[in-house]
Parts: sequence; C-alpha cells; structure tokens
Amino acid sequence: MTTTLITGGTVVSATGRGLADVLVDGETIVAVLQPGSALLGTDVAASVDRVIDATGKYVIPGGIDAHTHMQLPFGGTSASDTFETGTRAAAWGGTTTIVDFAVQTYGGDVFEGLERWHELAAGNCAIDYGFHQIIGGVDDASLAAMPKLVDEGISSFKLFMAYPGVFYSDDAQVLRAMQVSRETGLLTMMHAENGPAIDVLAAQLVAQGKTDPYYHGIARAWQMEEEATHRAIMLADVTGAPLYVVHVSAKQAVEQLAWARDRGQNVFGETCPQYLYLSLEEQLGAQSDEWGAFEGAKWVCSTPLRSRAEGHQDHMWQALRTNDLQMVSTDHCPFCMKDQKELGLGDFRKIPNGIGSVEHRMNLMYQGVVTGRLTLERWVELTSTTPARMFGMYGRKGVIQPGADADIVVYDPNGHTSIGIDATHHMNMDHSAWEGYEIDGHVDTVISRGKVVIDDGAYLGAKGDGRFIKRGLTQYLT
Amino acid sequence: MTTTLITGGTVVSATGRGLADVLVDGETIVAVLQPGSALLGTDVAASVDRVIDATGKYVIPGGIDAHTHMQLPFGGTSASDTFETGTRAAAWGGTTTIVDFAVQTYGGDVFEGLERWHELAAGNCAIDYGFHQIIGGVDDASLAAMPKLVDEGISSFKLFMAYPGVFYSDDAQVLRAMQVSRETGLLTMMHAENGPAIDVLAAQLVAQGKTDPYYHGIARAWQMEEEATHRAIMLADVTGAPLYVVHVSAKQAVEQLAWARDRGQNVFGETCPQYLYLSLEEQLGAQSDEWGAFEGAKWVCSTPLRSRAEGHQDHMWQALRTNDLQMVSTDHCPFCMKDQKELGLGDFRKIPNGIGSVEHRMNLMYQGVVTGRLTLERWVELTSTTPARMFGMYGRKGVIQPGADADIVVYDPNGHTSIGIDATHHMNMDHSAWEGYEIDGHVDTVISRGKVVIDDGAYLGAKGDGRFIKRGLTQYLT
Amino acid sequence: MTTTLITGGTVVSATGRGLADVLVDGETIVAVLQPGSALLGTDVAASVDRVIDATGKYVIPGGIDAHTHMQLPFGGTSASDTFETGTRAAAWGGTTTIVDFAVQTYGGDVFEGLERWHELAAGNCAIDYGFHQIIGGVDDASLAAMPKLVDEGISSFKLFMAYPGVFYSDDAQVLRAMQVSRETGLLTMMHAENGPAIDVLAAQLVAQGKTDPYYHGIARAWQMEEEATHRAIMLADVTGAPLYVVHVSAKQAVEQLAWARDRGQNVFGETCPQYLYLSLEEQLGAQSDEWGAFEGAKWVCSTPLRSRAEGHQDHMWQALRTNDLQMVSTDHCPFCMKDQKELGLGDFRKIPNGIGSVEHRMNLMYQGVVTGRLTLERWVELTSTTPARMFGMYGRKGVIQPGADADIVVYDPNGHTSIGIDATHHMNMDHSAWEGYEIDGHVDTVISRGKVVIDDGAYLGAKGDGRFIKRGLTQYLT
Amino acid sequence: MTTTLITGGTVVSATGRGLADVLVDGETIVAVLQPGSALLGTDVAASVDRVIDATGKYVIPGGIDAHTHMQLPFGGTSASDTFETGTRAAAWGGTTTIVDFAVQTYGGDVFEGLERWHELAAGNCAIDYGFHQIIGGVDDASLAAMPKLVDEGISSFKLFMAYPGVFYSDDAQVLRAMQVSRETGLLTMMHAENGPAIDVLAAQLVAQGKTDPYYHGIARAWQMEEEATHRAIMLADVTGAPLYVVHVSAKQAVEQLAWARDRGQNVFGETCPQYLYLSLEEQLGAQSDEWGAFEGAKWVCSTPLRSRAEGHQDHMWQALRTNDLQMVSTDHCPFCMKDQKELGLGDFRKIPNGIGSVEHRMNLMYQGVVTGRLTLERWVELTSTTPARMFGMYGRKGVIQPGADADIVVYDPNGHTSIGIDATHHMNMDHSAWEGYEIDGHVDTVISRGKVVIDDGAYLGAKGDGRFIKRGLTQYLT
Repeated sequence: MTTTLITGGTVVSATGRGLADVLVDGETIVAVLQPGSALLGTDVAASVDRVIDATGKYVIPGGIDAHTHMQLPFGGTSASDTFETGTRAAAWGGTTTIVDFAVQTYGGDVFEGLERWHELAAGNCAIDYGFHQIIGGVDDASLAAMPKLVDEGISSFKLFMAYPGVFYSDDAQVLRAMQVSRETGLLTMMHAENGPAIDVLAAQLVAQGKTDPYYHGIARAWQMEEEATHRAIMLADVTGAPLYVVHVSAKQAVEQLAWARDRGQNVFGETCPQYLYLSLEEQLGAQSDEWGAFEGAKWVCSTPLRSRAEGHQDHMWQALRTNDLQMVSTDHCPFCMKDQKELGLGDFRKIPNGIGSVEHRMNLMYQGVVTGRLTLERWVELTSTTPARMFGMYGRKGVIQPGADADIVVYDPNGHTSIGIDATHHMNMDHSAWEGYEIDGHVDTVISRGKVVIDDGAYLGAKGDGRFIKRGLTQYLT
Repeated sequence: MTTTLITGGTVVSATGRGLADVLVDGETIVAVLQPGSALLGTDVAASVDRVIDATGKYVIPGGIDAHTHMQLPFGGTSASDTFETGTRAAAWGGTTTIVDFAVQTYGGDVFEGLERWHELAAGNCAIDYGFHQIIGGVDDASLAAMPKLVDEGISSFKLFMAYPGVFYSDDAQVLRAMQVSRETGLLTMMHAENGPAIDVLAAQLVAQGKTDPYYHGIARAWQMEEEATHRAIMLADVTGAPLYVVHVSAKQAVEQLAWARDRGQNVFGETCPQYLYLSLEEQLGAQSDEWGAFEGAKWVCSTPLRSRAEGHQDHMWQALRTNDLQMVSTDHCPFCMKDQKELGLGDFRKIPNGIGSVEHRMNLMYQGVVTGRLTLERWVELTSTTPARMFGMYGRKGVIQPGADADIVVYDPNGHTSIGIDATHHMNMDHSAWEGYEIDGHVDTVISRGKVVIDDGAYLGAKGDGRFIKRGLTQYLT
Repeated sequence: MTTTLITGGTVVSATGRGLADVLVDGETIVAVLQPGSALLGTDVAASVDRVIDATGKYVIPGGIDAHTHMQLPFGGTSASDTFETGTRAAAWGGTTTIVDFAVQTYGGDVFEGLERWHELAAGNCAIDYGFHQIIGGVDDASLAAMPKLVDEGISSFKLFMAYPGVFYSDDAQVLRAMQVSRETGLLTMMHAENGPAIDVLAAQLVAQGKTDPYYHGIARAWQMEEEATHRAIMLADVTGAPLYVVHVSAKQAVEQLAWARDRGQNVFGETCPQYLYLSLEEQLGAQSDEWGAFEGAKWVCSTPLRSRAEGHQDHMWQALRTNDLQMVSTDHCPFCMKDQKELGLGDFRKIPNGIGSVEHRMNLMYQGVVTGRLTLERWVELTSTTPARMFGMYGRKGVIQPGADADIVVYDPNGHTSIGIDATHHMNMDHSAWEGYEIDGHVDTVISRGKVVIDDGAYLGAKGDGRFIKRGLTQYLT
Repeated sequence: MTTTLITGGTVVSATGRGLADVLVDGETIVAVLQPGSALLGTDVAASVDRVIDATGKYVIPGGIDAHTHMQLPFGGTSASDTFETGTRAAAWGGTTTIVDFAVQTYGGDVFEGLERWHELAAGNCAIDYGFHQIIGGVDDASLAAMPKLVDEGISSFKLFMAYPGVFYSDDAQVLRAMQVSRETGLLTMMHAENGPAIDVLAAQLVAQGKTDPYYHGIARAWQMEEEATHRAIMLADVTGAPLYVVHVSAKQAVEQLAWARDRGQNVFGETCPQYLYLSLEEQLGAQSDEWGAFEGAKWVCSTPLRSRAEGHQDHMWQALRTNDLQMVSTDHCPFCMKDQKELGLGDFRKIPNGIGSVEHRMNLMYQGVVTGRLTLERWVELTSTTPARMFGMYGRKGVIQPGADADIVVYDPNGHTSIGIDATHHMNMDHSAWEGYEIDGHVDTVISRGKVVIDDGAYLGAKGDGRFIKRGLTQYLT
C-alpha cells in the first residue's frame, strides 16, 4: 500500500490546532506526528512513498455534507445532479462524504426505496456516501421496517411536517415514528414547517395573483417554521426521542431549539449557507433579462430565504457560534432554470424547491472564519466533526487521528476562490445560486480514503471511488 | 531522553475515543499511532525505553484544576494545603495542572502579590501550575498593572462581588477592570454573590442566635448569587468583556448564564463537585459526637451548598450536559476542623470558607459517567480540554496530540476507589468532605511532563517536579 | 315597574370596593348611591317598593359562566343537565348568565346547529344565556356562514385541536377560521390539545391494559396541551386573530400564554375550578365500594386533571393573580356515573368527558379570597367583569352601574356553604365532583334582571325567566 | 352645599364606559344615575344648583400624576415650578391630584424633610396633593422613622440606585429598607439605574471631550437600567417586599419586570410620556440658534431618552397595553434653559435632570387612544385608576362612584389642543419639551373636590384649593 506523509501543516480539530504531520498508509491514517522529528530514529519523510507539503496551510478532516438530494424526484422533475456529478462537485469543494436521502413514499416499501437509492449511487460516486431514510408514509409496515435500518447502516430517518400528500406525516405518525426512534436509537430528522397551513396561505397568494418566486417566502412565514419546530420538540419530549431539525432558517425557530436545549432535551439543528448569506429581500429584487422577476426562482428552497431586515441571517451566524445550531449542511437539491425551475412560471408553488451548494459549503463557511464570525476550530466542527458524530461516523470520519479514514483536505488560507458559473463550478446546473461570491481561501488538495482526488486544480479521482458507509448510531447525544 | 509508549488503551478526547498508542519522548508527546502497527517497518514498542500497557483502560489528558487556593490566607488562618501537599494530592487524583490564585489586596501592589505567590509555589509543586491574579483592590495603580500580567503568563484575573472590606470590588471598579479585560484579552473571572446584601442577612441571622453552619447557606440565598451573576453579565455586556463565573451553585444563576449565551455573549461558568453532590439539607442534618451540629462546618464554602429539594444539583448536572456550564474545577480551599473551621463556633461568619477536593475531582466526575449523567468525552472536556482552552494552555495541555506536554492519565474503568480520611486521602486535612464516596473507576498511572508520578498505588514524583506555566490568552472565545 | 333598593352593602367591582346603595327599577340598575343619603331631599329607601338589607355583605355583579355544555351530546350520551336544570343550579350558586355552546358538526349547517340549540334553551332557562358557536367542520360553507353569526349575537366560535373525527379541525382549517376571526372580530376559542397524538397514546395505554380513568390523564400529557397552545398562538399570530384558550390546566400552557402576551398578542386563557383544586394524584387514589378505581371517572374531563407534584394547581392560582389567565369558567359538562360515566368501564376512552360545577364556581373561587390566593376585586373580575368584557356583554352584564341589567348577588362573607350531593346540590347528577368542599361564604340573594330568584335558601324563579343575550364583539382587546 | 349634575356624558372607567349622569353634592360624588331618568319621580337636573352638559364628551376621574418634583433642589438649582405654578398647570391639563416627593438626604432626619415639604406645599396648591418620601440616607435612624410614615399618610418611599453621594443607597441599604417595606406595607419605589457604573462611563466620555447633552444618554446605557431593575427585583424577592420601578425607559428593563411578574412577584412599573414619544436620535439632532447642539439639554432626564432604532418607544406602548407597565406619571421636574439647564454647558453631567410634563400628560396619553395604541378604558386606568390604587387613594380618587371626591374631568374627543410655549403652557419654564405636539382632544372642564377650577379656557381656582391627602397602603397588590 501507498504511504503518504502530509507534512508541515497546521492540523485543525474541533478543539484546537497544532503543527503536526499526518501519516497515511493505504486508505487509513496511521499516525499523527510531531513535525520534523526523526521518529525513533526513522526519517519519516524519507520513508514514505509520497510527501505532500502543507506548510502554511490547514490540514483538516474532509468535509461531511450530511444533507444532499442527488437526483431527487420532486415536483415532476428530478434534482439535476446525479450521484456522479454531485459527488464529484463535492470533492472539488473539499467534501469527502455526503449523506443523501433514500426515499420511501406513502404506501411504498422502505427497503425497496433504500434499494433503489443504492442502485442510483453504487459505482457512481467520487467520494464516500451514506443514506438517511425518508419515511414518507408512516404506517404499520414502515414502523416495523425502521428498526432493521440500523443493521443496514442507516441510523437516521427523516419526516416531513410539510408537503401534505407528498412526504407529509401528521402528528400521530410523527409520534409513532419518534417512539421507534426512542427505542432503537435511530435519530429523527425533521423538516419542520406547518405544511397544511402553508398550503392555505400559498393558495390564497396565488389566487390573488401573487405568483412570483418571492411569494414562496411569504407563504412559508417564519411562524410556520417556528410552530412546527416547537411541535416537533414537544413530540420529542413526550416520546423521549432525540431530534434533529434540518435546514433551520428562522431566528424564532432557533430560539425554540435553544429553549429545548436549555431544558436538557437532546435537540439539534442544522442550517445551510443560503440562510447565512442570502435573503428574501434579495430574492424580491432579483431580475434578469432572461427571466425577469422569475430570476428569484433560483433561490426558491424550503425552508425559504428569510428577511434580512428581521435579522435572521445574523442570528443564524450567532447560533452557530453559541452552539444553538450544531451543523452546517447544504440541503443540496439543484434544479436548472431551464426545464426545471421554469415549471413554476406563473405559480411559485410549482417551482422545484432547492439550491445547489454541495461544492461551495466548505469555502462559504471558511469565509465566516475570515470575517470573524467563526473560529477556525468551529469551522471544522460545524462542517466535519459534528456531522460525523451526529450521524455515527466519528472515528472513521470527521477527525484526523490514527485509525481514521484518510479523508483529508489541505486548505490554503492564502489562496482565493471565485464562485460562479464561469469560475469554479462543477455542479450540473445552468446557473449558480452563489454567482459572484469571493472566498479568501482555497481547497488545494483533497484526499479521499488515501487517494488524492483533487490536487493543483485537477480532478484525479474516478467514478466509483466512493463507497457506501454503514453508519452507527449517533455519537452526539448528551 | 526517555521514550515511553502507552499502548493498547482507548484514547479519549473531547469529541471522541479510539484505540491508539501514545509515544512520549522526554517531556513531550511526539506521536499518536495506530496500535500494534509496525510503523513504516519499525516495531515501535520494541524501540522505546518503556512500555505502559493500557489495555482495557482509558488514556486521557491529565486533569486541569483551574481553581485552587493553596495556603490562601482567609479569616485569620490559611488554607491547610501548601503547594507541596496540595499538588501532590492533585497528582494522586489524576490532576497534572492546577491554576491557583495570586492575591493582590486593597492598596497592595499587583506584582508584589504575584511575586509572593511565585515564592510560595516555586520548587514545591508536584505538578505544573499557573496563576490567575486576584485583584482585590481596583484602583489606578492596579488597572495600570493589569495589562502587564499578560507578559507574565497571567491571562486571567478574578474579582469579587462578595466580601466587602476584603476582596470586594464595587460596580464602578468592576466596570473599570472589565474595560481592561476588553482591551487586553485578559479574562475576567467573577465571584458572583451580592456581598453587601449577604452581610446584612448574615448579621441578622447571628443576631437572632442562628449561628450554626447551616445558616451560612441561608444568608447566602440563591437570589444573591443569581443577582450578582446577572449584574456581572450586564457589566460585561456594556464593556464588551468576556466573563467567566466561578463556582456556580444556584440553578437560577445557570439560567442567567444560559440567557446571556443565547444572546451571543461570551459568558462562561464553572461548577464544582460539591454543588453536584452535596446539599444544604445534608449540611443541616450533619452531626458528630465531636462537633455536634457544627459538623456541618466542613461543608461551609461560598457560594454555599444549595437545597436539593429546590433541584439545584440536578440542574448543575444538566447544565454540564447542555454546555450551559463549561468546566468543573474544585475551588480547593481546605481548612481543618481543629484550629481552623472551629474559629466559627458560635458565629458561622467566622468559619473559614472552603472545601478540599483537589484530589477527588477526576474521580467524582468520572462517577457522573458511570451513572449516565455525562459521556466519557464530556468528562475529558469538562476536566481537562476546556480548562486548557479557557485559560490559554491548549496545545501544551488538555489534549493528547504531538507536541503537547506528556501529561497523561491511565484510568481504569474496572478499578474502584473509596474516598475518605482512612482510604485514599493525601490532602492536608483532618477530615474529608467526601467521606464515604465510592467511585467505580481508578486512577492507575499519572504521567506529568513525561515523568510517571503515580503508578501502582505509589507516588514516584518529587517536590519541585512541577513548573510554572506561562499561559496565553484564552482560546475559548467564540 | 317594581323598584328595589339594595342598601348597606359593600359594592365590589374589578378595581375596588365601597359602601353604596343600588337602586333597581324593573329589570335595570338605575342608580348607585351614597348610602343613607337623602338624595336631593328624597328618602330613597322610603320611596322604593322593596328594600334588601345587605349590611355586612358584598354586593356583586351576578356571576357569568362563559363555558357550559347543557345537554351536550358526547360519546353516545348527553350531558345530564338540561338547560332547565343546569341554569337553575347556576342561579343557586350566584351565576346569572351562562354562555353555552351551539354545535355544528362536520358537514352540518352552522345555522341549523344554532337553531337546534335555541330550541333546546328557549323557554327553559332560569337565567340569561348566550351562545358561542362550535365549528366542528370548517369548510367553505361554514366559513361563509361565520360572519353572519355576528348579527345573531354570536360573537365567538370554538374550534377543537382534539377529538379527531368528532370536532377536530386540522391546522389548515384552523388557519382559515382564524382569518375569518381577524376579518369579522369574532373571537376564536380553542380547545388546545393535540388530539391525533393523544389518540395514539391513549390507544397504546388501552392496548397495555391500562384502562382505568387515571390513564385518561396520562394519555393527555401536559406536552400535548402545551404544544397545541403554542400552535394556536402561532396560527393566531400569522393571521392576526385574537385567541381565547379554554380550560387551561397545564402550567406549561400558561407559560406559553404569558409568552404570547408579553409579545403583545391578544391571547387569553380561562381555567376552571377543577384545575385549581383537583389533581391527577387524587384521581389515581379514588376508590369507592360501588365503583372501585373507576370512581376516578367522576373527574374525567379534558383537558385532564394535572399532577399536584408537578405544581400545576399552584401555578394556575398564580396565573389568575398575575393575569396570565383572565377568567374562570366551569366547562360544566355533567354526566352521571350510572349509565353515563360507566360507558367507559374497561376503556377510559369511552368515559364521557366532563365535570359539573356550574353551581359551585362562585363559591369555589370565593374560597380563594378566603385563603388569600385572590383579592376580592379579582374574584369579581375573574367571574363576572372579564367574562362580560371578553364576550361582548359588558355594560349590560358584569358591572353594577346605571343602565346595566339588574343581575346582582348579595354574598355573605360570614355565611358558610357545604358542598355535596346531600348538601347544596341542584345539578342533575348522581354524584358531586366537589363532595365535601366547605366554603367560608354564602350566596344569600340572587337577582336576575331585577327579579329575586334565590333568597333565604329558596328558589323563587321560574323556567323561562332567562332570555337569550345577543352579544356584541369582544370588548377586551388591547 | 352646592349640588352639581354632570349630564349626558359617557362615564369611562378602567373596565368600561356607559352613558350616565354624575351627581355631586359639595365635594363628593353622591350618585351615578341613568341619564334622563326621573329618579323615583324626582327630576334630578331640575333639582340641582348647577348642570354641566357633557353630551358627546367623556366624563372621567381626574388625572393623578404620582410622580412630580415641584421646586426640587437638584444640581445646585431647584425645579422651576413651585407647588403653586406646578399644580395650577396640572389642573389646566386635567390632573386633579399629584403625589410629590418629600426629601430626606444622607444624615438628615426623615420627618424634618417631610415637614419642610409640607411647608412648601401647604396653602399653595391648586389641586390635592400627597407625598412619597425620598430616603436618601438609609441608616438606623431613618429605618426607625419609616414605619411612622404610615400614620402620616405617606405610604411609599423612594430609593435611588443612582446618584452616588447624593441620593444613592447601596444594596445593603436597599435590602434593609425593603425589609421595612415588607413589614409595614410601605411600597418601595426605585430609581433603577446603576449609578456607580454610570458615573465611570460619564466621566470617561467627558474626558474624551464628549460633553454634549446627547452623551448623557450614552453614559446611561440601557444595560445600566436593565441591570438595576433586575437587582431591585431580586432584592425585593429575597425580602418579600413589593416593588415599584419609576420612569422605566428601556425595553430590556420592561422585560425584566414582565419576567418578575410572570414569576408571581408584586413588581410594578411606570413610564412617562417622554419615553413614549421622544428619542435619543432626536436629542442628537436637536439644534437651535440660541443653544446649538446644547438645545438637546431640554430633554436631559434620568432615565434618559432611548434610541428609537432600538425600538424602546414602541415597546413602552406595547407594555402599557399588556400591563407589563401599569401607570404613566410624568416625573415632572422642570428646569429653564436659562440659568438652569445651561449649568451643564461643556459638561452634560451638570445639566439639571428633568422634563416638565405635568400639564400635558392626560392629553399626550389620550393621543395614544386616538392613534389606537390604547383603549379609552386603559387611558383612564393608566392615568387615574391605577395611580389611585397603587398609592392608596382609591375610593376617594381614581374612580367615579358614590362617596368619591368629586375630582372629575370633562374631556372632549372632538376638541383639539396645541402644545407649545406660545400655545397652552402654564408651567414655569422658558421652553417646552413638547413644542409642536398636537392633540386630538381637549380638557374642557376640571372639577376638583366639587369645585370647577378649569372651564371654558379659564382658570377658576385659587391657590390653596388643594389639600394634603393622607394616603393609605397600596390597594394594588395581588
């Protein structure tokens, strides 16, 4: 097996940083060493097959994006990134693991859904991948199936309080599924928006002729997210289940999470780059020659962008600092404007929901370090260490320590990255939600299970490099 | 220099655990290795001077007790542990660093106080030690002196809102000192109790003949701690200073800290084992043939023990879980019953305030792991990693990684420890506040900067092993 | 018309008390006078037809019980009090107005429901009565009908978040109805419990053989009330509707109401005597020779009795003091043990839900004055003045002032009342939920629209004395 | 004695309104009557000496301004209104009672202070007046004197957490005084600002050359008010004393009050018109030819004006609605720009603190009714009924009912009032803090203990009409 020494860099963990060399043997990290030392008389650098010089750079565990939706069927179309294109783009951006969502829908069989997603991903991924299981139809059959997911390495499932008739679970269903969560250790992930109420508001807006993308965010008012978040917390409380709320965007929802955590509940939340940087006001102002006001459709996602005047974005950054939110994922769910987003011309309800960010998460969050919003350590924690712990991969993933998979990123704080469709952009989209963003840092080298897949601006990996990760139960409960 | 390999153990960090070997060269950790691997062809175990078998045991960074008061002058006497006896007892208990308090009193010179404490400690300590600086008299001179503390490796200072006429600072003084904190990065530590109000209540109780030790806790009502905590938070807010509240014991004070943290303030809190395990009710019930109801004097400390019926202890444990409190120190300040505590016979106000726990902290907190109150990782974080980060020692202390001081404890989860004056007890006290406590774990081996100081039930160290640690600024701000 | 002077008493209002005489002419109060004064030369007492001596007694506006369910169909039976028996019992207890609930059920016509209730009540009542409208089926037809209720003197409607398949409205329905509330000024009343989740929990308990009445309270956990209360608040927030939550019993639900009110929302809550005095623990301990543990069925109501150990009852009293709750109604819904409650032998879900208290509310709340829980003024405010304001009757009802209906109670603070089936009890029930309660006060005289209906222990009224009150919009919004 | 009938008006109380006639005999209200009725055959209007036609107008209890400082010595000068000029201006504005502050200063005798204020007021007032007692020096003598205040009709005392060296009490003093409050029923009023800290901040600003009036508000940061409010609440909690916080201006202070009230504490707060209408931003922008930026001195008061951008004013209005604040007083403490305010040219700390509003309070608050911020009933409650209850005058003052003093205002909602030095202005000031304010209402007639003192734009009263009111204990505790 090939041995590699990453030397001279600053290894960053969730709690601190220090100069250290990292020795990789095959797919695995085998040692972390004081740099330059002749270890017990052995000149390590001279003894390895390959030396990567990380002097002046950060050596971090590869990014873990725990919320992606490659080729997800939604609203009559499918997310535009396949597992092949999406995971390759992820690698470009310093992400070495994704956790995508296998889908069971109402009346469908859980394992058939899982099998289908295995087929989509197997042999196609550039980096390692795991699955959460969407339970779109909680019934006796799916409840009976859920405990068996643990053996499949699927240690988390997702429910929806939104999308009645599609993925929606009512409170009785949520309660029953959470009871399984409590009994099995499966982590309950929740899309927390009051779908039935939102659908009324959305229909009324459309009936009033308010059909532009902007109204998507008006219909999905913060009250509807806050409410559902509180409800999920209380259903978790009565069942004793831990709870993970996905894509939190409203500051009031964060306040509910903080309240639950202060009460001692095991309640967690993720946010996404779009809720940190983008706003409803910008969506309202979006215009293009091609699309007019429909240009805002590129930012239609659920939960929606929130008003900057109301302070949601600042509060999200603060919550990442104060650990009222624990993770940053992307909810990567890309759709092209052409043929896809444009399905919603004249009715925002028909715009496929989603933004593509899997390639940019590590960079966008690093920019928060540059601007002083986050510490370097917190960056690593939010994007890699906590995702690994939360979803049962820590030890293999999320940390640079002996025995771990050699998923490593060499990040250059003196580099620069321009984001945009004509700049770095490897996602299968005809636009970028992040056009024009500039990052004061750069992903130099990406190692995935010991293989250098990105280096010096080139993709060196291959379809099928990535393997399915059987995850264990969450390691994050307190 | 001697090389040592600690092999076969489970290395525990603040974020996770894993089987790994730790290689020490002289005083320093030089590598963390996949166990059993022949590293690049070298048989590591065969190449080192000494192998410590940690199979089935935890290998953790040495404990850091960031709040001790060796030989502190108080109430006409001095704490009964010298730096020699106290640090040796600490080593017995798996603590390899203490941070004690140098004292400046009103009108005194800051550096004279610091010098005096250096003289007391130098050459006497069994383990490494640092100092916080008590500023008992905030005035122009001390304010001018404070920034220079940074160069002395003193990166934190402590103020008192209690003890008028002794250590007390009024709000104007606190404000001015916090402004220095904001400007220099020095961390403000606060004894948060409303001393002037408490002194009125205490005098009224004594006037009513309520002189037993129990009334110490009645006079120091939770409202007085909660209030001072809130006040410190607001003074910190108006100055922009970070704040660290010592020995938090009231659940309402924790609620104030949680509130401030949810607002985004850099506010932190420590608690101590006594506030987790002991209660006002037990103090009320304490009786002995020798001392009668005055037996409760052994548990007189400030902040005081709190009522179990009111739920303070459970709330402290919860706050440690939820990170509303970040650290556990001891506030080790031992006094013998004979000649010392008995000064307060007939007037609880004259009982020297303090409990001795420096030896037992790691064990007492481990018992929280056994009972499911904490995770193993959180144990390490609360007792070592966060103290190191909070007080500017991380990298050297608080973590097992290359380049760090070889401060390492081998802890046996299958061992057992009985606490009590006739059992393990190496503190210079004529009683134990922890008599009869049983721990389902054992400190097997303690390594301090590469030297084995405790092993197989024997103390192998020497007076003067410990060196002064020049600390940097806090690494914990978010 | 007959003129009456109530002389020598202390007239109590929501804000204060004072010695005053009250002059009634026919059905109406025409003057409030300084006692004993010869008014402009006229000896008032000598000029009237009748003088009632209230010396040493309180003269208060007649009680208003804004939540009763006379002869309500429920669970295959009907509440055991008819409008005749129930209103007569109310009069005995110093209540001179009730607001009962007309019922529309799913698919039914709102006005047919209202008409049916008019038929039940007309000509049968001892005291005045109004109606709220239950909307059991929110659909286009009922939404269109609702605004017309205002003209009918029905200014409030009630929705249920509980009882799926019976009265239940889902969130989309609640939202639409609240929009009508916002537009019309109709006040939304809410039964706030998460019915779908409760039904799962209840079914699981029964499946486990936990069928006793006690488990009714276990299934209807406080989390389910707190959650629904929060949800109703947020739906009210997003629509701008005012909200009135009925029969609040969980302290956590009160905290949600207080939170909403502190935010400035027009949110109100009532509690009932059972939530102030009775507890889940007593229900658990209930036993009788006839019924065994099923004796607890007499206290089965929804929301359920709460745990005294958890402090709900004390918190309800406090919330009445602090105005976090604004009213006390009874939710009078009596069922006999024989033939009715016993339907639930072997399955607590089949026990008709309800307690009969319409006769005892004024006395039970007065006992709170005796024990120092409430002021005399607050007693009047909670039981009469606020109900009148809340439900659009103030001016006619709820106050002793010229122009008001002469609904007046002379209450003797030196009297005594024993409650129980063999003592005072005029409700049509075979048991009393309040057996053995002793009250340090007594309803001496009750005047309903100028007619003395209760005096000296005798009922002097007649079926049909009471008339339907067309209510206006709420006068309580801030 | 003269009899007067006020006829045809709408009598407004704290809970409602209704058409009623009010009959006055001498100084006292003797009856409230159904309008137009021939009472028991007597034509009332024809039988009285005088009829005041209030048709289309509101008849309200005379305003009570519970916080004024006539001729208060402050900063080397004295408030510019004497009891004569100030109470006459009050009468012009519909206020028929003031409660001013007698002053004891450190080392002084409480009763000498009180005597001095009696001398200042006796024979000079246009309307009735009472006194609170300022305790500027809490010591054994003043603590012993305080209980005797009750017999003097002084049922409340005020402490200052601000103004060290002048009125300031430290926490030990506050605690001891609150204990007297608890024992005697005297209500503790608190100026809640952290004076020692503020003085440091103010001195630092002046040292930086920031001497303009605007910096008064910067030095007195909201944190300093919030903190002191919380501290006062906790000292009240530990003693069991009720607490009344004067001149609340920071929204965060209101949040503390709301929190305490939700906990069940008897804690109350007043605000003043300046905190509802004026802002720090306007003070910053104030400019005049004569005074330049020093023009802002006219708005220097403590607590200071707050930032509108931070939302304090809106929050004060909301808190008045939600009863988180209970009263509106003026803190009337007028100083002329010439000779008085100008003492602070070049040093804002020397500007006498105070704004004159005693004449305008009723109008300014009525404008809140016009703009929909308050209900008509709440206007009466905030300005008259609650002040009477809070300070032990209800029954005589604050309500229109038989037996009450005939303090009555006829207010015309169709009238108009322009405020300004050249418009209505009867206070002894060379400027108006309210220049240019327009009110959509008008004080038509003011009756003080039966005497018409203002009518048809004329002052009909005389110096000495007003008498001292011996107040009882507060009637507002819950």
